[in-house]
Formats: sequence, C-alpha cells, structure tokens
Amino acid sequence: MTYLSRRITFSSAHRYFQKKFSEAENKKIFGKCYNEHGHGHNYVLEMTVGGSVDPLSGMVINLVEVDQILKTVTDPLDHHHLNFDVPEFSKIVPTTENIAKYCFEKIKDLLPREVNLEKVRLYEAEDLWVDYNG
Amino acid sequence: MTYLSRRITFSSAHRYFQKKFSEAENKKIFGKCYNEHGHGHNYVLEMTVGGSVDPLSGMVINLVEVDQILKTVTDPLDHHHLNFDVPEFSKIVPTTENIAKYCFEKIKDLLPREVNLEKVRLYEAEDLWVDYNG
Amino acid sequence: MTYLSRRITFSSAHRYFQKKFSEAENKKIFGKCYNEHGHGHNYVLEMTVGGSVDPLSGMVINLVEVDQILKTVTDPLDHHHLNFDVPEFSKIVPTTENIAKYCFEKIKDLLPREVNLEKVRLYEAEDLWVDYNG
Amino acid sequence: MTYLSRRITFSSAHRYFQKKFSEAENKKIFGKCYNEHGHGHNYVLEMTVGGSVDPLSGMVINLVEVDQILKTVTDPLDHHHLNFDVPEFSKIVPTTENIAKYCFEKIKDLLPREVNLEKVRLYEAEDLWVDYNG
Amino acid sequence: MTYLSRRITFSSAHRYFQKKFSEAENKKIFGKCYNEHGHGHNYVLEMTVGGSVDPLSGMVINLVEVDQILKTVTDPLDHHHLNFDVPEFSKIVPTTENIAKYCFEKIKDLLPREVNLEKVRLYEAEDLWVDYNG
Amino acid sequence: MTYLSRRITFSSAHRYFQKKFSEAENKKIFGKCYNEHGHGHNYVLEMTVGGSVDPLSGMVINLVEVDQILKTVTDPLDHHHLNFDVPEFSKIVPTTENIAKYCFEKIKDLLPREVNLEKVRLYEAEDLWVDYNG
Repeated sequence: MTYLSRRITFSSAHRYFQKKFSEAENKKIFGKCYNEHGHGHNYVLEMTVGGSVDPLSGMVINLVEVDQILKTVTDPLDHHHLNFDVPEFSKIVPTTENIAKYCFEKIKDLLPREVNLEKVRLYEAEDLWVDYNG
Repeated sequence: MTYLSRRITFSSAHRYFQKKFSEAENKKIFGKCYNEHGHGHNYVLEMTVGGSVDPLSGMVINLVEVDQILKTVTDPLDHHHLNFDVPEFSKIVPTTENIAKYCFEKIKDLLPREVNLEKVRLYEAEDLWVDYNG
Repeated sequence: MTYLSRRITFSSAHRYFQKKFSEAENKKIFGKCYNEHGHGHNYVLEMTVGGSVDPLSGMVINLVEVDQILKTVTDPLDHHHLNFDVPEFSKIVPTTENIAKYCFEKIKDLLPREVNLEKVRLYEAEDLWVDYNG
Repeated sequence: MTYLSRRITFSSAHRYFQKKFSEAENKKIFGKCYNEHGHGHNYVLEMTVGGSVDPLSGMVINLVEVDQILKTVTDPLDHHHLNFDVPEFSKIVPTTENIAKYCFEKIKDLLPREVNLEKVRLYEAEDLWVDYNG
Repeated sequence: MTYLSRRITFSSAHRYFQKKFSEAENKKIFGKCYNEHGHGHNYVLEMTVGGSVDPLSGMVINLVEVDQILKTVTDPLDHHHLNFDVPEFSKIVPTTENIAKYCFEKIKDLLPREVNLEKVRLYEAEDLWVDYNG
Repeated sequence: MTYLSRRITFSSAHRYFQKKFSEAENKKIFGKCYNEHGHGHNYVLEMTVGGSVDPLSGMVINLVEVDQILKTVTDPLDHHHLNFDVPEFSKIVPTTENIAKYCFEKIKDLLPREVNLEKVRLYEAEDLWVDYNG
C-alpha cells in the first residue's frame, strides 16, 4: 500500500454555540469562541488516500481528480460563515472535530472505488488539528 | 540602529462590503469576500521597532513590554468579527491594508518613546501580506 | 475515534553525557552534543489524544484543559537546563527519545480518563523528531 | 517502541513520460508534467525508524549513522535529472509514489538490523506527499 | 504608502552552464549545478507593490489583478526546463539572481500605473533567496 | 543592485545575567532567562549581501564561499553555551540583539570586497528576531 496526501486551504468564519446549553454553559465551555458574531480561521485540510501504484502511470490516483474532489468539498466552506451557510452546522457546533468528520464523509462519497480514504486531517491553526478516519 | 521584531497571531471574521457601492459593484470588486455572513482568517501580525541597544541589558526593548502592547492591540480583534465588533471597521472595509494601518496606529500610541515603530506587517494568509510604516 | 492534537514549544539547554562511558566513548558517541557547558533547542511538543466527540459540545476534550496540562508538563523544562534542573535527567541522558518519553508519562498522569493519550511527538529541530506512544 | 524521524532535502528534475502510452495518453494523464524537457522540485524526504532506546546512550540509533545513510541514498538524486541519471527511472515514471518506494528500499538495505524502517515520507511540495512503508 | 505582497510558486528545471567558460571553469564555478541534464526546484516568488489605499475599496490593488499578472509571468516557467523552454535563459545562466530580474521586469510591464513594483523576492529554497528592485 | 540571502541554523545555550545588576534587577529584567544554568534555542541566521550580478556566472557571489563564511562564523556558537564558550559573551549579555551584532561583524570581516553586507537577521524563535545592519 502506498499513501498519497494532498493539502488544500480554505477560510471560514464560525461560532461555537449550543442552543441546548444555557448562556452560562456556553460561555464556560466555549469561552471567546462563543462571541456573538463569530471569528475565523485559515483552515488547512489534508486528505490521505491509500491504494496500489499503477505500474504504467506510477500513480495511486491522478492528482487532477484529487484536486477536483477537494475543491468540490471545500468550496461551500471557503469564504463562508459555517454556522449560517452550511446546513450541517446549523445543527451541530462547527468545531474542528465536526468539520473534519464533515470533510471526511464528503470526500469519501466522491472518491473512486480503487482508492481508500485513510484519513482526513484538519488544522484550525498551526498548533491545533484533528485527525478523523471514519 | 538595531531592529527587533515580534510576531503574534489572532483569529477574526470579516466581510468586505462598501455601502457606497452598488450590489453589483460590491460583487465585482470583492468577489467571495462579499458573501453576506463573512469568513475569517488566522492573522499573523509582526511589529518591528528600532532603537539603540542598552549596553547593560543588551536589549532594544523588554519583550515583556512588547508582548503586553501586542496583546492590548489584538485582544479586541481576536475571536471577533471585525465588521461588528471593532468600531473602526463599521466605517471602513476591514481589508488587510486597513487592518495593518489600524494595528500600526494602536501600537504606536502604546510604545515607549525610546524606540521607534518601524513597520507593521500583517499576514492574512501565508501568501498575502501588507506592510505599513506610517 | 477522533484524534485531537495540540502543539506547544519550550526552550531548554541540555548536554549529552553518560558517566558510565569513558571520555573517549562520550566524545565518539555524542560528538559536539558532549561539549561541556551544553547547548540548546526550541523544542516543539505535540500531543495527540483520541476519544469520542461529545454530541453537544462537538469536542473530544476541552482545549483549555489540554493547555493547562501541557503548561504543567513543560514549565519545569522551559528556560531550564535539563541536566541540572530536571531530576530525571540527572540519571538518564536528555536525548530527544528520553524527553519524549518523559513528556508522555507526565501528560498521561494528568489527562482525564475519557480520552486516551495516543502519542507524543517531540521535535528537537525541524529535521529531527521522536514519536513515543507508551 | 520509540520512533525517530529525520528529514533531508534534495533537488531534482524529472519528467512524467510513459513510452507505452500514446502521445495523447501521455498528455491527458500527465498534463504539464509531460513537458518535454522536464521540470523540478525541492524534495523533502523523511524517514522513520523504530526501535528500543539504548539505556546508556538514550538513543534508538546514532544520528551520524542516519545522516550517512540518507546522504548515500539521496546523493545520486540530488542535483540530477531522475529520468536521465537514475537507472531505475528510465524504466518507471519518476512519480512521487515511485521515488518514495525507491528511497524506502535503498534506506532499508543500509539500515542496521536493530532498528526497523517504519516509513518513508516524500514531499514533492508542501501540499503533496507520499508515505510508503514496504 | 502601503505595501501589498503576494506569493506564488512554480516548479522548474534548470542547469548552470556558461558556454564561454571551459569545462573546468564550469565545473569549478557551478559544481553540481553544472550536471548535464539539470535539476530543479519549487521556486517561491513574492512580489511587493506600493501605493495608496483606495478609501472606498480599502485596497492598494485588486488581488484578482495581481494573481492574473503573476500567473501570466510564471506560466512559461512553471513545469518547464528554463534553459530549453525560456528564450532569455538560452543566453544567460538561469541563476536565482537572473530569474528574479526576469520576473521583476515581466511583472513591471503588466502592472497598472497606479502602483509601484517595489521588489521581487525569489526563493530557490527555504535557505536561499534573491531580492531585486530594479 | 541585487541582494542574495542565505540561511543557516545553529543550536546554542545561553543565560541572561548582568553582574552589574543586583539579583533583584536581574530577575526583574531577565525573568526566566536569568535561570542559573541557562536554556537554549535553535537560532536561524540570515545574511543578505548586495552587489552586481556577474554577467557570465549570473551570480552576486558564489554560494560555496557564502557557506564557508557562515560556517566559520557559526561553528564557535553551534552546540555551545554562549556565556561560557564565546569570549565576547562573558562581557556582554548574549541577547538576540548582541548575537546579531556579533555575527554581522564576524561575517563582514570575511566577506570579499565586491559585495556589501546589507543585513544580518537572527531568529531566536519563529516569533522573535533581530535585524542589524552595522
């Protein structure tokens, strides 16, 4: 098995807010991430696919295809406010954990069968990231 | 002259929107930065001060003081939506250019007289930044 | 399982020296790391915890808690000379391997039960690092 | 088990070209990587070895030995055109996948028995890399 | 004056070879950069323009325009072998110095008059770069 | 004028301590940098030279020469404790400011006359650096 990874970035706003929590709970659990109008990040998304290397092309998967999939998945997030603009995040808090899972599932649906989606890594910042593998 | 530079990061949401522009102009000039609910970035702010090195301490300025100033300046921006939460950016568009100028002026007011604020550099992303020197 | 990782830095001095080795052995095995007064690094410590995502908060663990643990573990190392100031490293050589294990065990003791410490990665420099998983 | 990783860089030219493909296929599959005279990259190679930590030296493996192995493996690639100068890549396309495998096998042959070559990671660019583990 | 900088990357092969030098001179001066079939790099090009900030748009120059210019300038270099594919570099050696000057002049011709091209910085690698300002 | 910059790293221990200060002053001014046995950093040194580009070689200065100079200057610092091992820093505090000036002067003495040493930049960490230009 050979693993190919590709990185893409997107810029989004988000707010941590759980309507089932009281205001005091929201403040205590989410701190400044609970600020009313949200804040934002340059997210870095890395996807890793595993597969066998085609003996002729020397590739696990064609990078053009990978880039189309990553663009399809991140376009609805990029330059958007996740809480307002992405239906999934009106129901669940757009934490790094939940966004990573969201990206994993969207990518998985689009990948061709010959390769396996091993992992998605999502960086909210250089010093904070989440790995999700389904 | 010796120049000391310090870097700090903050995470903000913003939206490019000029009420004096028509909707068509806003869309044309600002593109996806005009999306209604905004998006966000991990901003990296670098400030450079110039001065003479104190022969005893070996320092241009004490880093503790620098860090207090940078925190004072970026706290109102960090984990906030610039258009809503920072009065200056209800009047002017929170572009990298304007945020850099804002930071320069706020830092300049707080710096001790013995050092000179040479420059502020503000990165919106790794591949886009603005320098402002007053 | 979802994995959350957090990075923190600390700056330490250290010296590679094994009293059970002869001077010639110390020099041969440790090279310039054996220089008498030591040298130092900006260490980068990354910890990865695995757990399930809380459906309400959307988090594996609260980052405030993570940061307190990492600060508690690295404060005795930061701005210290490991050989002199950290009892463990008066007995064993403070190599990247041994410091990584030290950090892993200290973090493990402090982590709440609901999450699992998957791994600690310690960078001595951009081009040299150690992973330890218990 | 403790894992030690080391990074080295090398700069090579290469061209994606499969003589068993028609010109149209080469163009379609390889795009601009098929351009006649090739292009190039600053490759970043990371190797990870696993082993037990020697209780006296505190090391999995001596870094001097690691660096000699990595230099032996990358010297024939560094400042060379892979298609012309490396016999293996006159037969197979020098994709990141194939170069990673090449490096893994060369390193494995040179490593001492006490340690295990866990993985090789090869970056063609910051946003594209391949992991190979044998 | 406010200065806006933008970064773009391109991947090229090149060879250092001066036909007016003897073979011995070429070898002595250019070392392994003289290897017959060339090698390559991921170049990072940064351009800095200076101008006044438009009070309505908050911009020195529209980033869409900047990106078009940078793409126009780097497309003939990207995924090409500079010595073969770029006429200028059949006459002069494609050193970082000469490529930086080439990019500066091409960008200058395309920039609108309202902004001034302050500088071009070209990285051949993380640890080697050239600044050229006309 | 064309400017060429080169980066090199070295790892040193140091301690901030001024014998003309009282213990209380040392603690107040230097904080944890005053800890008795010192701490350390991976320093990154960048030097920038300016000159004209030789029309035949296409170079401002040969990189081999640059690297020899930088090695000569940093070898006495690398894997050393600056306060103990470098005579200059037994008299003045080895702050980033003073180390930058030290490197500038040592490099200047070794550079050939045809190029001008424009600047030395010294990073103590990613978020703290000093520029010195003589």
